[in-house]
Amino acid sequence: MGQILLVTGGARSGKSRFAEMRARSMAGDPVYIATAQAFDEEMAERIIQHRTERRGQGWQTIEEPLAIAKALRDTDGAGPRLLDCLTLWLNNVIHAGGDWRSEVKGLVATLAEQSSPVVLVTNEVGFGIVPDNPLARAFRDAAGFAAQMVAEVADEVVLVVAGYPVTVKTFR
Amino acid sequence: MGQILLVTGGARSGKSRFAEMRARSMAGDPVYIATAQAFDEEMAERIIQHRTERRGQGWQTIEEPLAIAKALRDTDGAGPRLLDCLTLWLNNVIHAGGDWRSEVKGLVATLAEQSSPVVLVTNEVGFGIVPDNPLARAFRDAAGFAAQMVAEVADEVVLVVAGYPVTVKTFR
Amino acid sequence: MGQILLVTGGARSGKSRFAEMRARSMAGDPVYIATAQAFDEEMAERIIQHRTERRGQGWQTIEEPLAIAKALRDTDGAGPRLLDCLTLWLNNVIHAGGDWRSEVKGLVATLAEQSSPVVLVTNEVGFGIVPDNPLARAFRDAAGFAAQMVAEVADEVVLVVAGYPVTVKTFR
Repeated sequence: MGQILLVTGGARSGKSRFAEMRARSMAGDPVYIATAQAFDEEMAERIIQHRTERRGQGWQTIEEPLAIAKALRDTDGAGPRLLDCLTLWLNNVIHAGGDWRSEVKGLVATLAEQSSPVVLVTNEVGFGIVPDNPLARAFRDAAGFAAQMVAEVADEVVLVVAGYPVTVKTFR
Repeated sequence: MGQILLVTGGARSGKSRFAEMRARSMAGDPVYIATAQAFDEEMAERIIQHRTERRGQGWQTIEEPLAIAKALRDTDGAGPRLLDCLTLWLNNVIHAGGDWRSEVKGLVATLAEQSSPVVLVTNEVGFGIVPDNPLARAFRDAAGFAAQMVAEVADEVVLVVAGYPVTVKTFR
Repeated sequence: MGQILLVTGGARSGKSRFAEMRARSMAGDPVYIATAQAFDEEMAERIIQHRTERRGQGWQTIEEPLAIAKALRDTDGAGPRLLDCLTLWLNNVIHAGGDWRSEVKGLVATLAEQSSPVVLVTNEVGFGIVPDNPLARAFRDAAGFAAQMVAEVADEVVLVVAGYPVTVKTFR
């Protein structure tokens, strides 16, 4: 089974940069699976900035807002895959009216079958006051559930703080 | 003195599950002290789900939204107590017009006198943008104050991230 | 080069208290560089409480909401400086219409030139749901960017949880 690394952290914590560094350090040509969808101009700018600043040379990029388990199956066997990020994907699933619980279970089942490594980025969203908005609460539930489910099959989990990793789970 | 373990983490981080696992691993019949009150239907569902899914067999359950220090004194001497959670308790204290500072001090004094272990669950709520709502700010202050006060008398403090514990304070 | 310590954590996590303890343990007379500005009565009370409760004897206090790089240069050579906190400073910079990116870069350049130690306090603000408010999102970006930039030049970074430090980066 390929190595599974889950990278979590707050917004602007450097988690994507850390995840990219780890994926680049793995053997084979890396594949970037981007789940971001531009809902507005700010988001569109962020996506372009991400692409320009970070991806660098040598990355194959796949933009897949929903069918990430399929994207993982389709790209297995060559190099590491960087999936950035689970929380945007869940947001897409919820907006599309999907069943996030079964989607997460499908992802986890797919992860367990991969032969090439997968680095997954997720966002900590549950360290604030309970949101008034029921949709925001559902999203918090989904993000927490997904992180726990993926962490269970992961070989390594790190929490990125100010760009540096704190070990949460390790195989060593 | 009995062992004091403080388990903190974000919403849906797996902290309750981790705390239950730790309490079950201790000698004696575990007691679950639940502070949750159903203010609305969503909350009522969560409480029932918690009860059904998690508590399992062998737990004595006490529902106590306010007088948790008394509940600890009343149940001392047999097995471990799992108090879930401090933040809901503080919310109840604030809604009841109580003085949260003196309530927390009373809890800490009681903890120091226990002969059986106590596992306490609390919620990190201060890692977001400052809330506009003054009540939410007061709640954040209370939660942070309580966590610090309890951590000071605790033998062990862990931050649960994606279901796994990061050591914050340890007696080892 | 003097030692650089970055102390991060949520609101009411005990990070300021921890940072003060560390600064006091360093050789020389400590200097407190306070960035807090009283925008309202609640804030004014907090500032006074901070001053009274925490600073204790022996601290020189400088209130500097904006020109903190200059304050560091002006106080270099004697004892440790405690800068509390980066996030309030960024808030002041944004409210004053300043360019936070270049301000942070200026601070980091100054930090690299210091001969006396600097302890910097910052606030984790990105572990919640994405705020609706564009200004709050910009503030989150600024706080995350500043923490990453300062962490890169820091010798040590700790995340304070319930009053206790979790090591994020260390020179040991």
